[in-house]
Amino acid sequence: MRNIEVLFFDVLGTTVDWRGSITAEVGEFLKRHNLGRIDPARFADAWVGRYDASVDPIRAGKRSFVSLDQVNRENLVASLEEFGLSSASLPPEELEDLNLSWHRLKAWPDLGDGLSRLKSRFIVAPLSDGHARLLVNLSKFNNLPWDFIVGADMSQAYKPMPQVYLRACELLEVQPENAMLVAAHDYDLEAARRCGLTTAYIVRANAEDPSKVGNQKAQDGWDYKAKNLLELADMLQ
Amino acid sequence: MRNIEVLFFDVLGTTVDWRGSITAEVGEFLKRHNLGRIDPARFADAWVGRYDASVDPIRAGKRSFVSLDQVNRENLVASLEEFGLSSASLPPEELEDLNLSWHRLKAWPDLGDGLSRLKSRFIVAPLSDGHARLLVNLSKFNNLPWDFIVGADMSQAYKPMPQVYLRACELLEVQPENAMLVAAHDYDLEAARRCGLTTAYIVRANAEDPSKVGNQKAQDGWDYKAKNLLELADMLQ
Repeated sequence: MRNIEVLFFDVLGTTVDWRGSITAEVGEFLKRHNLGRIDPARFADAWVGRYDASVDPIRAGKRSFVSLDQVNRENLVASLEEFGLSSASLPPEELEDLNLSWHRLKAWPDLGDGLSRLKSRFIVAPLSDGHARLLVNLSKFNNLPWDFIVGADMSQAYKPMPQVYLRACELLEVQPENAMLVAAHDYDLEAARRCGLTTAYIVRANAEDPSKVGNQKAQDGWDYKAKNLLELADMLQ
Repeated sequence: MRNIEVLFFDVLGTTVDWRGSITAEVGEFLKRHNLGRIDPARFADAWVGRYDASVDPIRAGKRSFVSLDQVNRENLVASLEEFGLSSASLPPEELEDLNLSWHRLKAWPDLGDGLSRLKSRFIVAPLSDGHARLLVNLSKFNNLPWDFIVGADMSQAYKPMPQVYLRACELLEVQPENAMLVAAHDYDLEAARRCGLTTAYIVRANAEDPSKVGNQKAQDGWDYKAKNLLELADMLQ
């Protein structure tokens, strides 16, 4: 193994169960508004399914950076319309609270113990399309013991743009070859590998991103492949 | 009390006992090199005493931002010369290790419990002239449970420049009036207050900065004044 100093972790899907968490909050929201006829899992996938198309103009430099709160808010309104609902007919503060369900995504059960073990040897830090405040709120909600937090607002870029990975390494004064990305998505690992980072693939149920359909066959060839952070900690011991 | 969401903490002096820690490491270094005739406390104060003059050109925009590692390294060489020693006569890796003693400063004894209590209600984050990696190393060394880390390299500025405080608030998406600076130095609190932050003065023995002689009389008029973080946690309950 190379001399790894820093482990970066993808968050949405890898660290937290976004699909399960969003579906649960959407379900409660729909029930409260007598919209039980709508399937919350389908609504959640529709909501996130708009993600890639929304972020692409930012990746391409055609739109200035806006945070995930803003992207999610726009896509929530569009998804409501897709399901025949008008956002104007719903209380704005309730829509805002639903949008903030992204700050309350639940961590996978291995996270606390896995991070505690890994942080005794490495610097552990999320590296996410989420912005700093979202990541701080998520971490407090789940009691995650990160050593440092890198949000998309700190590079003003979204994955898989190389500046995301390179800015994170620069902030922690680590050479890319001394850093590893831990993620449940191939496109993310591929981009990190192109920047020189070591890669660890974590197999997560429910982590597929509906905005990236057709690009989901798990690849091989990553430096590590583990079923969770505890297994990864064993491998890196 | 205003609706405070975030507590920022000064680090050098307020969170860690820099003077005691640097003096101890300098003492060991001098002993190892048969330089026991030099008083480590005087050497440590001479080293830090050069800090302000070194950083002033950066504050004034006359020198590009360099991190505290670089500033400390230059001032270590100058201090050795001041004490009649040539840095060229000492092993470079030992000098580098001595310079990294700033990454191993010991936290005051109330830090762990104090932060744990405060973080149950607030976001807690260091706000320091130290850069991100130095703060990460310090935090791991002392097992400090920060929610977020703001280093000087993230604003590319040194205290008391307003962008230090404003950039930190921006990163955490908090209005200055919903943030508080906790510090043992008046000039820091004064600058934070000018940016709109609430202020809490912590009385620390050994926190005086020898580079700011003549400006050390503790002022009154801060929003809070406590002898340590445990007393501050009581006050904010």
